[in-house]
Amino acid sequence: MKPLKVALLGCGVVGSQVIRLLDEQAADLAARIGAPLELAGVAVRRLGRKRDVEVAPDLLTTDAETLVARDDIDIVVEVIGGIEPARTLIVSALNNGKSVVTANKALLAEDGATLYEAARAGNGDLYFEASVAGAIPLLRPLRESLAGDHVKRVLGIVNGTTNYILDKMDTTGASFTDALEEAQTLGYAEADPTADVEGFDAAAKAAILASLAFHSRVTAADVHREGITEITATDVASAKAMGYVIKLLAICARSDDGRSFGVRVHPAMIPRTHPLAGVREAYNAVFVEAESAGQLMFYGKGAGGAPTASAVLGDIVAVARNRIAGTRGPAESTYADLSAHPMGETVTRCHVALDVADKPGVLATVADLFAKHDVSIQTVRQEGHGDDAQLVIVTHRATDAALTATMESLRELDIVRAVASVMRVEGDD
Amino acid sequence: MKPLKVALLGCGVVGSQVIRLLDEQAADLAARIGAPLELAGVAVRRLGRKRDVEVAPDLLTTDAETLVARDDIDIVVEVIGGIEPARTLIVSALNNGKSVVTANKALLAEDGATLYEAARAGNGDLYFEASVAGAIPLLRPLRESLAGDHVKRVLGIVNGTTNYILDKMDTTGASFTDALEEAQTLGYAEADPTADVEGFDAAAKAAILASLAFHSRVTAADVHREGITEITATDVASAKAMGYVIKLLAICARSDDGRSFGVRVHPAMIPRTHPLAGVREAYNAVFVEAESAGQLMFYGKGAGGAPTASAVLGDIVAVARNRIAGTRGPAESTYADLSAHPMGETVTRCHVALDVADKPGVLATVADLFAKHDVSIQTVRQEGHGDDAQLVIVTHRATDAALTATMESLRELDIVRAVASVMRVEGDD
Repeated sequence: MKPLKVALLGCGVVGSQVIRLLDEQAADLAARIGAPLELAGVAVRRLGRKRDVEVAPDLLTTDAETLVARDDIDIVVEVIGGIEPARTLIVSALNNGKSVVTANKALLAEDGATLYEAARAGNGDLYFEASVAGAIPLLRPLRESLAGDHVKRVLGIVNGTTNYILDKMDTTGASFTDALEEAQTLGYAEADPTADVEGFDAAAKAAILASLAFHSRVTAADVHREGITEITATDVASAKAMGYVIKLLAICARSDDGRSFGVRVHPAMIPRTHPLAGVREAYNAVFVEAESAGQLMFYGKGAGGAPTASAVLGDIVAVARNRIAGTRGPAESTYADLSAHPMGETVTRCHVALDVADKPGVLATVADLFAKHDVSIQTVRQEGHGDDAQLVIVTHRATDAALTATMESLRELDIVRAVASVMRVEGDD
Repeated sequence: MKPLKVALLGCGVVGSQVIRLLDEQAADLAARIGAPLELAGVAVRRLGRKRDVEVAPDLLTTDAETLVARDDIDIVVEVIGGIEPARTLIVSALNNGKSVVTANKALLAEDGATLYEAARAGNGDLYFEASVAGAIPLLRPLRESLAGDHVKRVLGIVNGTTNYILDKMDTTGASFTDALEEAQTLGYAEADPTADVEGFDAAAKAAILASLAFHSRVTAADVHREGITEITATDVASAKAMGYVIKLLAICARSDDGRSFGVRVHPAMIPRTHPLAGVREAYNAVFVEAESAGQLMFYGKGAGGAPTASAVLGDIVAVARNRIAGTRGPAESTYADLSAHPMGETVTRCHVALDVADKPGVLATVADLFAKHDVSIQTVRQEGHGDDAQLVIVTHRATDAALTATMESLRELDIVRAVASVMRVEGDD
């Protein structure tokens, strides 16, 4: 059978692993697809660079635009990342009738609609399993296996860097700065860790997850985003003492009336008994609650050359089979056409630690203020005495707007010396 | 668009949930598929029976054979279970060009080849996500997402009943009999629990997992099977004391040389730090180790009407889309054509507790006997004194044949009063 020709855009950590697997697994891949795959070109920025894998020099090119439009190419694999030139190249490939496999979460979250539209127009496939949670087969189950179910909520640890940092803080008592430094030393965090620690990376993934879970268009701009830089060793210890662990979560949740959804990334306390609580180091895991299926969890490596390449290869096999069968995989599914509601409408719970004056009537005053904002209190406990007195309050479910307003009012109370920490609580309802 | 007609075989716990979902989700399903689904017939054993769902009387029939051959039927959903008449009906449906969705693990493990062959001949789809681990999207990832990777090992908790029993024994110290009784009271175990507690159910699922993981034909007869009926509260407590938990595992592992695989179901001790150790109650989870993807885990409900129906519906959507596109999903993949090796060739480790005479030289004699069988000892500790003296030994990796021979020789030693317990150790290599 005639080989299917693959063009690779990018030859970095992931790209070089894709090349290795295409070579090492050639016989297996051919058997699984029904035709051999042939690497027909690799677009790179600089030709002379040292690479992790050997590439025949005549395959290398700096002219990606010509490569993606070449008549003989069947499948274009994009692993360069970022918005441009990735978007232009992918759109051009799709317009030229190629199928595209990409790991580009930022682009999908920024402008997925343009890519889907090009795929539709060119009658090709757009697959992107590697864009969220690396090696974990997650998007295909969401797109396909749960196609007969209704997803209510997705809670995900989708950024390995921040999970590594929070896990270190939890297990060793380290500060954020020390844990970040360790992560950088070990290569889990970049020199400029902003995209990870401020939640941008997780927010892009949250947008992709929400779009698949709720069959609606969702972009990164819809995602409420908070990072982990302000989490202190005290926050972590206090969560631990209460049987909780702090994780950076990507949360996509349908509203109770089913007519909108919230999508957000922020640190949250989850009970240690929750399946996500046991996700250690740089691992990722995504917890899905569906109406009929109930609770599901997918766990694995969220990043790294080989794991990401495994997901890319799985997609290559799928689009290759589709091309041979003369068909396409699932197209964009936006029939539900729901919108993201503002963060204020999201229903959540809060853990609040207040430094208070240690005198009679404090609790009554604080409790009264919560009640005025229609936020009911689940538990309250006083810790310390005198100048160290602290009230630790966990609320029942309320809108984020009501919780935020409550926090603002608390800051204005004379008897509250400081709102020492505020953290949302998830995963125990 | 013309509706796709669905025939349902069986209207029990799962079937009635499938009917409910087809009805409740009709609009969503139509949007996802591109055409409405129409329930066109339901084959039951008795017409008059009370059911969990309302079915229009004119849809009910006791003549399943005619139903599966009806010209207007597109998709046949089989949820009656067992070998016959399920096999005859599925083969007939496939021969008549229908696509088939089944949850029938026993039939797939006994005679999957016949079903696949009929699907090939009729050019229809055979999907069976619900046959293993209920609602958990697992088979599709194995068949498709990991199609570009090499699965090395699958460790699964795939039977909820036995996991419930072992979890109760672990958390409450209950005996097997008491835990089984509780499981029966709660409906997690059947009046005749043989299929679950003797590992038959898990063995069928292990065969299916091995066939997908290793791209080879595997039947239930290839599976080495041991149940959990002989596990005592003492075994569980002893495992706990060492930081282990006992689980009934389905294990599919490629041999080190890659030329064969082992497939087995037996209780095993796994470290409490292993992701599978935290799988509680009747939940299922499957841990997959692939060459590039690394460690993956899939977790969720393994049984129950609604969870199983969710998996069935996901398959219905997939085969419906394939019919509209005029294509088929992945066919049987047996290109690797590996065989299961006998249990004796499987490499594992053992935890052994020996009641011994408390006198000098005992350890030397025992250690010598292990060495003679080429089994090296990782740890040994003596517990108790006098008549209560016990040696607890954990071995390094060795073939099961060598370990078994060692146990037999131990039983013949004068200084060994009894081999109190033998349990394989998995998940920490």
